[in-house]
Parts: sequence; structure tokens; C-alpha cells
Amino acid sequence: MHDVLIIGGGPAGVAAGVYAARKKMKVAFISDTVGGQSSVSAEIENWIGTVSIKGYEFGQSLDQHLRAQEDIDIQTGERIVEIREVPHGFEAISGSGRIYETKTIIIATGARHRHLNVPGEDQFIGKGVVYCSTCDAPFFRGKTVAVVGGGNSGLEACQDLFPYAENIILISNVGVLTGDPILQRTVRKNPKVNVILNAETNEVLGELKVSGLRYTDVLTKKVFTIVVDGVFVEIGMVPNSDIVKQFVELSSYGEIIVDHRTCTTSKPGIFSAGDVTNLAFRQNNISAGQGCIAALSAYEYVKKIS
Amino acid sequence: MHDVLIIGGGPAGVAAGVYAARKKMKVAFISDTVGGQSSVSAEIENWIGTVSIKGYEFGQSLDQHLRAQEDIDIQTGERIVEIREVPHGFEAISGSGRIYETKTIIIATGARHRHLNVPGEDQFIGKGVVYCSTCDAPFFRGKTVAVVGGGNSGLEACQDLFPYAENIILISNVGVLTGDPILQRTVRKNPKVNVILNAETNEVLGELKVSGLRYTDVLTKKVFTIVVDGVFVEIGMVPNSDIVKQFVELSSYGEIIVDHRTCTTSKPGIFSAGDVTNLAFRQNNISAGQGCIAALSAYEYVKKIS
Repeated sequence: MHDVLIIGGGPAGVAAGVYAARKKMKVAFISDTVGGQSSVSAEIENWIGTVSIKGYEFGQSLDQHLRAQEDIDIQTGERIVEIREVPHGFEAISGSGRIYETKTIIIATGARHRHLNVPGEDQFIGKGVVYCSTCDAPFFRGKTVAVVGGGNSGLEACQDLFPYAENIILISNVGVLTGDPILQRTVRKNPKVNVILNAETNEVLGELKVSGLRYTDVLTKKVFTIVVDGVFVEIGMVPNSDIVKQFVELSSYGEIIVDHRTCTTSKPGIFSAGDVTNLAFRQNNISAGQGCIAALSAYEYVKKIS
Repeated sequence: MHDVLIIGGGPAGVAAGVYAARKKMKVAFISDTVGGQSSVSAEIENWIGTVSIKGYEFGQSLDQHLRAQEDIDIQTGERIVEIREVPHGFEAISGSGRIYETKTIIIATGARHRHLNVPGEDQFIGKGVVYCSTCDAPFFRGKTVAVVGGGNSGLEACQDLFPYAENIILISNVGVLTGDPILQRTVRKNPKVNVILNAETNEVLGELKVSGLRYTDVLTKKVFTIVVDGVFVEIGMVPNSDIVKQFVELSSYGEIIVDHRTCTTSKPGIFSAGDVTNLAFRQNNISAGQGCIAALSAYEYVKKIS
């Protein structure tokens, strides 16, 4: 029987893995891949202590740190498909049919940015198509940028771009902006911003990197092309919480609700860390910190029940 | 007028500085030094993404990342001695008499481990004298270690050492252990542990690194020397919260009470991150994560009031 099963290979899961292994817990670590969402980033300049690192190298550094730990059962290319409660803990079944018995579980499965699902989008991820304005706004100094999404995320992305971008084209697929009125006012009064409403994005254009965006005016059905250097896709996040939704309390957005001081969930023995939780802000360092907390809480929990 | 004044140069303060600068806030950063408590560690193996780094190099990496930011007013060798509330924010006075006007403050002043204040202690910090069992227990594989402190911290340090150390000598300066009874039982029944009560530590011995510890039996006044490879000093932490104690709610231990999701304190406009707060666990990555949160919360606060 494992002491802890960690699900998810981003900064939260890796931090939990490193900390749990150093506490000599019996750890199983399951993830499709190790490295997290930032592995696809061109450049990361806000991983504390590192002036600049390529996303791919960042992912590798997490992988190396995890694998440097002794006695940790790391299964990549693997996915947990079901979790059941059993006496003294839980049993998790993987896609390949393996069963993991464990006293505790740390859910660090992250969240996915909702994608536009249009041609060119995936092709230019990290080459002008970005999903995190806090991370990536500084890379667009003097550039023209499209922000897709008229809710709070889109409006906040515009604000993040104000000190950097030269022109900002805010695109909403409906006839109004839906974010907070005060944010709308701030954004609309900034001379850098042009708002295009009723615009359905059809395609991200480019050769080696983004050079434009094509959209249809949904009222007139006319198609337009705008020249931009970047596309900020800000249409929401989907937390990957399905696997434990029958056990733990979720927010209305599907986030796992945790006590952020201890990373405990509503279910004893299940802990959670990183972007899958109801964080105020989603950032690599915040997730890594939570992963440490979740592992240390799981360690205390296991000491208490044994 | 600054948007944010950050006080403290460990991982929490540096993370706040990097994040606030990237948000183009007007930032003042004040600290004696940059690098934090871990700068004196021999080796750090639990900074996520880094298999191993010397404490000194870790401190330098924080310093470099902070100084790579544009438009940040960094004052080291400087200390804030007083904070006053003024219309629209705060005014902070430094030891050199400079006055900083600011809309918000982030307190990231950390905590100090209580020291034994005996000869040899400071000399062998990072050379056998350590203060963080979570961080440093794995470095004492097969060694004989003294743990000084009979409260919960000392007992937890023993547990952290069980998988690594060969012999553990738990030293208390009073006639009983004072930690939780359940922890006491677990520790006392482990064959690796010897408990010495009524023992006042007088000196840490060594040449290049720790080789022993001298103590006085307070009942018989006899002096004893034990041969050890390490001394874990586990006699408590003192949060550096004095500078804001008139503004914010503190715990009974003097920690700044924060909402750990947002790093807000009981006082609007004052945020706090890292070891000075009422954390469940004190670790570099946890502090860095909180520093990011505090900066992002301060950013939202400043947008709202302006």
C-alpha cells in the first residue's frame, strides 16, 4: 500500500513528489508527462530565481528533479481513470489496468485553457499564441496584439498589455463585453485599445510565427483579416477535476476547493494543489508552493492515521 | 508615490518584486540583504526544479532575478524602522531617514530561528548546525545527530531523521518532553533515539565541521560531551512582524495572519508573504508562491483604488 498517490506532472505534482519522497513516504507518481503546461512556452521569465528559461527546459528541470529522488514509483504515459474508496484509504485504477492502493491522494491535474479550436491556433502556441497574460505580456513590447475574449480574463489581459503593446485589438464573439463594468471602462478609455464585437475568430495566420487573425462578423457574415503579432486567447479555464468530483467539494467553475494553508480538500485523505484548485492566481511558483504544502499535509495525515 | 513597497529579501520578497515589476507597478524594494535565510545553507536539494544548489548560489540567483527587472527601486543595506498611515496609503521611514510614500506594502520580513546562543553554533551553521529538518535530514544518512528541543519541532525533527540518521540524541533543557504525547510515544519507542533531559547545551564542538556537543546536567551540574555529526536546533521561530504589529492581526506566536489564497492581512493595503505569516509549513517554494500571490493581490488592489 502506498502512503501517497500523486496525480499530475506540472510544478504542483513534481513539488509534491520531491517533498513526499524526501519524507520517505511510499510514493506513486502518475502522469501523462512531466513538465506541465509551461513546457510549450517559448520563454519563461517569471520562474523565481531564474532570469530566463525556455519552456521545454523548464519542463525538463522538473523531470530531472523528480527522478533524482530515491524510491519513488514514477509512471508516465499513464492516467488514472477511476478512484474508489476502500478501508484505510483509496484504490486508483489506471488506464492500463494497474491498481494503486494508497492511504492518501494528491490531485495536481491542473487546468486546461479553453482553446478557440481554429486552424493555426495549436501550430502557433508559443509562437505568438499565448494563454497567460501575466506571463507573456512583457514579450509583446511595441507590438500589435489581438486579445480574444470579452470577459474579465480578456479585459485583464488588455490591462497587462497596456505597459507593453503598441496596439491592442479586443475581440468578442458577442455584441457586448461581459467583464466587470469598471474593467470595461478602464479598457475602453485606453487609446491603445480597439474593440471589435460580434467577431467570430476563424483562423490564426502566420508562417513561422503569428502574423494575423481572420474573423467573421456574425451580423454581416463578412470576413476580415487583421495584422497582429500575437493572439492572447482569454476565453476561460477548465479544471481537470472530473476524477475526484464524487469525493470533494467543487466550486461553480469545477475547481477543487481547498484550504490554501494546508491544501486539504473536503474529503479527509485527499489533498489538492495547483491550477485544479480554486486559486486566486494561476502561476508556476504558486503551484509549486502548493505542491510542497500538499505533500507535507499528507505526511502529517499519514503519521496520524498509522 | 510608489504603488508597492516590498520589505524583505528572501524568496517571498524577491517573488513579489519580480511579479510587481513585471506588472509595471512602481516598486520600492527594501532589505538588508537579498537571498534569504537559505543563503547560509550548505546545500539545498528541495528548491523545485533544481536537483542541488549551494545556499550561497541560491541567494545569488534570487538577487540576479530581482535585479534583471526594469524600473525597480532596490535599496539593500537598508531597513524600515517605522510605518505610518497617511491619506491614500502609507509612509515608511528607513534607518537612513529616507521616507517612502506608497499605496500598498508587502511584508516579507521572514522569521528567525531561535538560536541557542552558545559558542560554536554560529561558526558551524551549514557545517553540521541546521535549523530545518525537512530540508536537511537527508544530508545525515548514517550519522549521529543531536536534536536540541523537546517540543513539537524537536520531536518532528526526530521523525524526519528516522529514515536517515543512525543515532538520534534528543536533548531537552527541562525534565520532560513538552511536545504532543502521541509524538512523544512515537519518538521514544524508536530504537534510534536516546533522550537526555535536564541538559543545558553549552557549546557546539568541531574543527571544520561539527564533531560534538557539550552540555551541563542542570541537576548535578556535571558537564558531558557527546560525539555527534550534526546539531538540529529546534527551539522555535520568531516572526519578524514588529514593524506592522500596530496595523495587522497577529497570531499568538506573533505571525501575521493572512488569507492564504490572497495574502491579504486584516489591514487593507497591507499584504504579507512567507515565513512571517501564519504558514502551516515554512519552505522556500511556499514563500516564493506566496510572494507571487501578494504582488498580484496588491496589483488588483491598486487598480481598484485608482
